[in-house]
Amino acid sequence: MSPIYRTVAGSFIERIGNGEIPPGSRFPSERQLASEFKISRMTARAAVNLLAQRGYVERRNGSGTYVSSPKVELDLSAVAGFTERVSSRMITPGANVIEARTLRADSVEDLDVPAALAIPHTDLVYKLVRTRTGNGELLALEESYLPARYCPDLLDKDLTGSIYELLRMNYQLEPTYLRQEIEVTQLSSAVALILDTYPDAPALHATRTTWDADAKPIEFARDVYRGDRLLFITETPTPR
Amino acid sequence: MSPIYRTVAGSFIERIGNGEIPPGSRFPSERQLASEFKISRMTARAAVNLLAQRGYVERRNGSGTYVSSPKVELDLSAVAGFTERVSSRMITPGANVIEARTLRADSVEDLDVPAALAIPHTDLVYKLVRTRTGNGELLALEESYLPARYCPDLLDKDLTGSIYELLRMNYQLEPTYLRQEIEVTQLSSAVALILDTYPDAPALHATRTTWDADAKPIEFARDVYRGDRLLFITETPTPR
Repeated sequence: MSPIYRTVAGSFIERIGNGEIPPGSRFPSERQLASEFKISRMTARAAVNLLAQRGYVERRNGSGTYVSSPKVELDLSAVAGFTERVSSRMITPGANVIEARTLRADSVEDLDVPAALAIPHTDLVYKLVRTRTGNGELLALEESYLPARYCPDLLDKDLTGSIYELLRMNYQLEPTYLRQEIEVTQLSSAVALILDTYPDAPALHATRTTWDADAKPIEFARDVYRGDRLLFITETPTPR
Repeated sequence: MSPIYRTVAGSFIERIGNGEIPPGSRFPSERQLASEFKISRMTARAAVNLLAQRGYVERRNGSGTYVSSPKVELDLSAVAGFTERVSSRMITPGANVIEARTLRADSVEDLDVPAALAIPHTDLVYKLVRTRTGNGELLALEESYLPARYCPDLLDKDLTGSIYELLRMNYQLEPTYLRQEIEVTQLSSAVALILDTYPDAPALHATRTTWDADAKPIEFARDVYRGDRLLFITETPTPR
């Protein structure tokens, strides 16, 4: 029942999926496909269109078609930071600290911080800005605020791994509830530069609040994720 | 401690939030702001920039600045369709049927359908394509597949409301588990036309599978949501 172009595309989906054709390798031209499968150029084009549309291959201007790197999966429903959300064991998460400092809640440029953290305006907060990586590739930018009163000297710890793990280990704070407001956005030039991609690239912006087991806000963050490199998963009810 | 532009922006956030300045109304020009608040044009511009960046106002080319309509909130973590996910009582959800037909699983253009629904290739499926609206405004396009064996004659029912409600009421099927793969994307010209917006507009694409209480797949769908009009919420653990 399947039209030929779908059969052709399907065979490539299988060969890309099982690693026979690795990411980054050059994909056959429409002419090569037509000759190899004894199909018309138009059928070959339809097959490549389907593969491109589904993200298996990408056309690069003037240089041909290439097998795409699979997107990194991020579990949005996990009560967890980036480190624990990167669900695949093939991806090693990392972090680069861009800014780490202590400031008074009422001098934070982001006006929502004191209310989101439910702390007096005169309290100190830690501001932590980090890029997040997967196998060294830049994937996200996180701007995070934590109340200093709950985790004194946090900034003296190693900030290149999971902050939630630091909160658990050093301050007996257990991230328990998570609420995110998610918006589709395009990267500003400044953020595109930091994430080594192009301005206006489609991205996902999450405003995230995390509470501990006593329903006390322990983190307020704004995360920007590269839309071209990440696939987000939600599962309901949340799996254990 | 707040710089003046933030104080000015903050006062407008309050007035927009409490409805004193309604959506769609014209926002004062930088010159008017400067004169009203006795601030410099540069400070006025910084205040408007902050409001624009946060989505409270939008600049329209050549015609000035306007107060934005607030985005419609959609709860991504609910085991529910669009109707039940539109969380605000101020928004009346609706649907327009674009396509409703019965076809064999192996003749569906989307190659993932038979496996996602765990049905034989020779089984019949219902294909249902609908636009989804909030207070009449076009917000999303859903392409949904349901196994005909579980819900015979579904297409004879009223398809302009919640399909989950139809499944519950007529077929004793209870949507219980939900998994979504979410990608950031840009609208194709065809979908932009259907959703009455512009091509390449940022959008969210969800591939959604729903299972009933017996862990039987009852729906497989691809949803496209307008990124400029929707705000997505996730809460973990899922609230009852």
